[in-house]
Amino acid sequence: MIKVSIVGGTGYTGVELLRLLAGHPDVELSAITSRAESGRSVSDLFPNLRGHFDLQFSEPDVNQLSESDLVFFATPHGVAQAMVPDLLARGTKVIDLSADFRIKDIAVWEQWYGQSHACPEVVSEAVYGLPEINRDNIRKAQLIACPGCYPTSVLLGFLPLLREGLVAVDDLIASSASGASGAGRGASVNNLHTEVSDNFKAYGVSGHRHLPEIEQELAGLANGQVELTFVPHLLPIIRGIHSTLYSTLMAGKDDVDLQALYERYYTDEAFVDVMPGESYPQTRSVRGANICRIGVTRPQGKQKVVVMSVIDNLVKGASGQAVQNMNVLFGLPETRGLMAPPLLP
Amino acid sequence: MIKVSIVGGTGYTGVELLRLLAGHPDVELSAITSRAESGRSVSDLFPNLRGHFDLQFSEPDVNQLSESDLVFFATPHGVAQAMVPDLLARGTKVIDLSADFRIKDIAVWEQWYGQSHACPEVVSEAVYGLPEINRDNIRKAQLIACPGCYPTSVLLGFLPLLREGLVAVDDLIASSASGASGAGRGASVNNLHTEVSDNFKAYGVSGHRHLPEIEQELAGLANGQVELTFVPHLLPIIRGIHSTLYSTLMAGKDDVDLQALYERYYTDEAFVDVMPGESYPQTRSVRGANICRIGVTRPQGKQKVVVMSVIDNLVKGASGQAVQNMNVLFGLPETRGLMAPPLLP
Amino acid sequence: MIKVSIVGGTGYTGVELLRLLAGHPDVELSAITSRAESGRSVSDLFPNLRGHFDLQFSEPDVNQLSESDLVFFATPHGVAQAMVPDLLARGTKVIDLSADFRIKDIAVWEQWYGQSHACPEVVSEAVYGLPEINRDNIRKAQLIACPGCYPTSVLLGFLPLLREGLVAVDDLIASSASGASGAGRGASVNNLHTEVSDNFKAYGVSGHRHLPEIEQELAGLANGQVELTFVPHLLPIIRGIHSTLYSTLMAGKDDVDLQALYERYYTDEAFVDVMPGESYPQTRSVRGANICRIGVTRPQGKQKVVVMSVIDNLVKGASGQAVQNMNVLFGLPETRGLMAPPLLP
Amino acid sequence: MIKVSIVGGTGYTGVELLRLLAGHPDVELSAITSRAESGRSVSDLFPNLRGHFDLQFSEPDVNQLSESDLVFFATPHGVAQAMVPDLLARGTKVIDLSADFRIKDIAVWEQWYGQSHACPEVVSEAVYGLPEINRDNIRKAQLIACPGCYPTSVLLGFLPLLREGLVAVDDLIASSASGASGAGRGASVNNLHTEVSDNFKAYGVSGHRHLPEIEQELAGLANGQVELTFVPHLLPIIRGIHSTLYSTLMAGKDDVDLQALYERYYTDEAFVDVMPGESYPQTRSVRGANICRIGVTRPQGKQKVVVMSVIDNLVKGASGQAVQNMNVLFGLPETRGLMAPPLLP
Repeated sequence: MIKVSIVGGTGYTGVELLRLLAGHPDVELSAITSRAESGRSVSDLFPNLRGHFDLQFSEPDVNQLSESDLVFFATPHGVAQAMVPDLLARGTKVIDLSADFRIKDIAVWEQWYGQSHACPEVVSEAVYGLPEINRDNIRKAQLIACPGCYPTSVLLGFLPLLREGLVAVDDLIASSASGASGAGRGASVNNLHTEVSDNFKAYGVSGHRHLPEIEQELAGLANGQVELTFVPHLLPIIRGIHSTLYSTLMAGKDDVDLQALYERYYTDEAFVDVMPGESYPQTRSVRGANICRIGVTRPQGKQKVVVMSVIDNLVKGASGQAVQNMNVLFGLPETRGLMAPPLLP
Repeated sequence: MIKVSIVGGTGYTGVELLRLLAGHPDVELSAITSRAESGRSVSDLFPNLRGHFDLQFSEPDVNQLSESDLVFFATPHGVAQAMVPDLLARGTKVIDLSADFRIKDIAVWEQWYGQSHACPEVVSEAVYGLPEINRDNIRKAQLIACPGCYPTSVLLGFLPLLREGLVAVDDLIASSASGASGAGRGASVNNLHTEVSDNFKAYGVSGHRHLPEIEQELAGLANGQVELTFVPHLLPIIRGIHSTLYSTLMAGKDDVDLQALYERYYTDEAFVDVMPGESYPQTRSVRGANICRIGVTRPQGKQKVVVMSVIDNLVKGASGQAVQNMNVLFGLPETRGLMAPPLLP
Repeated sequence: MIKVSIVGGTGYTGVELLRLLAGHPDVELSAITSRAESGRSVSDLFPNLRGHFDLQFSEPDVNQLSESDLVFFATPHGVAQAMVPDLLARGTKVIDLSADFRIKDIAVWEQWYGQSHACPEVVSEAVYGLPEINRDNIRKAQLIACPGCYPTSVLLGFLPLLREGLVAVDDLIASSASGASGAGRGASVNNLHTEVSDNFKAYGVSGHRHLPEIEQELAGLANGQVELTFVPHLLPIIRGIHSTLYSTLMAGKDDVDLQALYERYYTDEAFVDVMPGESYPQTRSVRGANICRIGVTRPQGKQKVVVMSVIDNLVKGASGQAVQNMNVLFGLPETRGLMAPPLLP
Repeated sequence: MIKVSIVGGTGYTGVELLRLLAGHPDVELSAITSRAESGRSVSDLFPNLRGHFDLQFSEPDVNQLSESDLVFFATPHGVAQAMVPDLLARGTKVIDLSADFRIKDIAVWEQWYGQSHACPEVVSEAVYGLPEINRDNIRKAQLIACPGCYPTSVLLGFLPLLREGLVAVDDLIASSASGASGAGRGASVNNLHTEVSDNFKAYGVSGHRHLPEIEQELAGLANGQVELTFVPHLLPIIRGIHSTLYSTLMAGKDDVDLQALYERYYTDEAFVDVMPGESYPQTRSVRGANICRIGVTRPQGKQKVVVMSVIDNLVKGASGQAVQNMNVLFGLPETRGLMAPPLLP
């Protein structure tokens, strides 16, 4: 049994992590922390967990946390970096669901997140936790930076095109849309039901924090710099990200079979599902499950390649991916605890 | 032209009042106040009003407000009572959309709202602004207390039964459900899209603030005390209240024609629509309009009378009713500015 | 391994049964039938099942079906009764999710369902599949009639009150509300997103087919006839039923501790969860899971008892209950395959 | 008074036309036809119109229709073309909300709509009814082809860029999303609440019928052929279209002030609203109103221009635009009957 603790369990990625771990046969939950809700029962806050966890939120304490084999951080950015160095020093493994260790260039991180990084020296040790790209490094990591939700959907969607050098890397577009749980569980007028429901809008067009993260990893796939236009939109749904990716086929690449290419790339990936030709994924088809479904097509056979990629932002976009990383990290079958089918309808 | 000001225009009843007044030919808007948003353009906060109002929120000031013929209060309870005595003293008329002047028994008000009333002496002057019950008093009023949204739907639904003494008044049930705009525009975790959407629940079952208000007015209709069980529920919709009312026919009243009774009672009311026999109202059929639709039936011809009553909580349940009151108060046709059809679908 | 077949797998209870059986360790799926979709891949119709079932819909064939240990019928009413006698004769066990065998009084069934019953002689053999009431009979049954969704929520909510004789049985009210999946997957204008979304309404007030079923079973609990007013409403959600139950405490029963009573009644039931005092259940807290959560209260300590009961209509109200019945029938732990936590948010 | 008839009034554009005409002071409604609902009261089908129209659906009859000054067709494609030649011959004016007369190239129309055109000779007479482009021709028209909903949002969004020759016309992208009312009021499994709600997906990626219409009109704006990638998506909302438009600034155009350009282009247009710099439109801000709101930006100041354009698909995308066309055609102020503010929240 892997002894696991969760720091910051009151947000949506926290409750989702608990939901997934409830069904994981190799995990024993030691502690779940929250300063604000310390002493309160987990199932009081999240009634779906009644009968599954008899646990109370506790104050975060590094000594106690370090007794776990693994600590998940399901916190806003800025929290993990204050505790991670201590945990690493004591040999505890860490999977951070926040943005603290995703971006390698400290200056870029500080610019986009508007604060100094508390442990820049640790960033280089962190492994970007997208197993489909980084599985071997994850196996050997002590600190894993789980990807953001938008990045996961965009990276898996573009991956075969970039690895094969098929499209112009200086003109990539990700027109993405996320359900409201992506904005977290904080009280805010903008995320009220009355504001989000029956509505659709773009936001953060001038610059979203996931942009540098996506560009960094796309560059890795393309083996060189890329230019991405990233426009996120807010969907009146609870869970789900849909990324519609636009890129232009390079001259001379006209006869590539994109469907076959995508199927070949992902044939061994348990959590990436390439839809049959000319069928497109929908967000509800991944609701609650750790899966990314992808469709690829060239409308009217022209030069523009359109890729559609969907995930559940709380699962493959956050907590499910974290569990997948844990499985890799601890030598378990990668699918352990992650095989429940999505909830549809 | 009636010179009108609005105190507290940043909530949903405020923007709704503005939307309705934009189409009212006899109203000139002098000021709209908000301490928090003072100086900000109204259409910046509410983009639906772009092009309709070129107005900024201002600090509330009694001197300035008193230059209006009429001041609407679209504020949380407790605010109006601090300013209303001054306005009344200067001869300004007031329509209060909050709960400050609805309950005649000061002790009851103070118990349910958890604070002392700032001007108990003014409460007795206030007229309960449900024109279908109180039209004559409204005409002569200086201070009108607009009914709550739940009360409006419940009172209009029970009215003919109680006035005619047809049902047992010691066993009335209102099983009501409201859209999320009823909870206002304040930031709150409970009202996030992620919490409200795809969900349904009862709340405030042990006691909701609208209970004493409804009981007070039902007693007026019944000409004696009544006992009401009131269970509100939260609907994952933006606008709309649906009240399902249960009562028991008194012995000997078996052959009353309820359909004919309701049609007779409301035949002259522009804003109450009795649905044809065996058809039931739905909330979307009143979306955006100042109308209450009512259906009445006795399932399987038994003793239980079931009344279904729907309103848009922001219109006939708040701002539309306020405009209707204004029309009565200023001697205008009661329907002036209120005849746009509901938005469906 | 239990060899299982499903007749009529293209509706929502069908896909839900598949989702649940995908995670059941003791079940082997032999066939899933559909006349309309014969030959089509299950995962083509329900993309959430991609990777979980490599199965095609087939024509229903009694010979083939009878080779299974158990046949589920997830069909509209009228279908199962045409095939069940044959299957029973061959020794196959049947769990019927439709209404064909729920009502003991054939005349009542024929009146409410508007057709003759094809095998009235079989009806008396059928066991009403609500394990919390009928567990012992289910164990020995060959044919199980799974309860309707509304009945499940109403019966479990009233059970302790009726068994204890605490409330007036001639005046029970169930004000219930269901998500749109309760109406099935048939094409219909009334169930379009544009018609259901952002709306709430009562329907079937003059008489819903679940009424006689509920009254039959309530009578069993009360040990005598009951009178129920049942008003169903349509919720703009996908899954979930919320029943708000109203009844009147009998004279002399004033000092009963309802909270303790409900906790005592359900303490050994894995799939009924009594909420802590003065807290109420919400539909999303059971989304996707085989659980009924119940809250009970007496508003203002008066005579009216209000019970709130929620289930996922597709799980505890249909397919999950069917699996629970299967577990009982085949001597498995009742919770086998049914312990995944609900999906929240 | 303009005598008006509506052919095909049972769909969503039909009821929306009625809602708008109810408030139009210069229109008298003569007839509304529907073969399927002939004899049924309009307000029986659309309860929001109770009290506004005392009219029944009638069988369509050209003789009777030709007595109107104007006939609106709110029918599926293929219907108007069978009746329009007769009406034109008798001097009646026609505004067709369907696709029958939008595409000038008959072969293209027949290819995309899969049928022969019944009156190709009339197509060249038809005026494309986007007043912001075609006002002068509309004034003199006898037959107006109202634009599709997606085309309206895309054309108004790209217009200033194309007219000024600022962007590469061989690489335009419209990533659009529509509410479910765009799919009409026909019974269909795909448009059930249970299928659409809490979901998002692309559809018609390989080719949507609005593509040739948009390309035709974009070519007019660009004064030459264009190439458009058009990906429509289905939103879980009732009303609203949001188009996110991507194009690339031509070399040497770096210092153009896009915000000023858009404001200048639309300064005299009552129904196009350019949002302030760095603010973006949302669909609910146009709900129920005849307005297109547009935001324009260059993320990170790069070469990609992103335009966001929103309309209510049933108003500026259909029935409101039809009324706007009528106003132009009959010499009325263009805003007559169209100035009610959008419904928000």
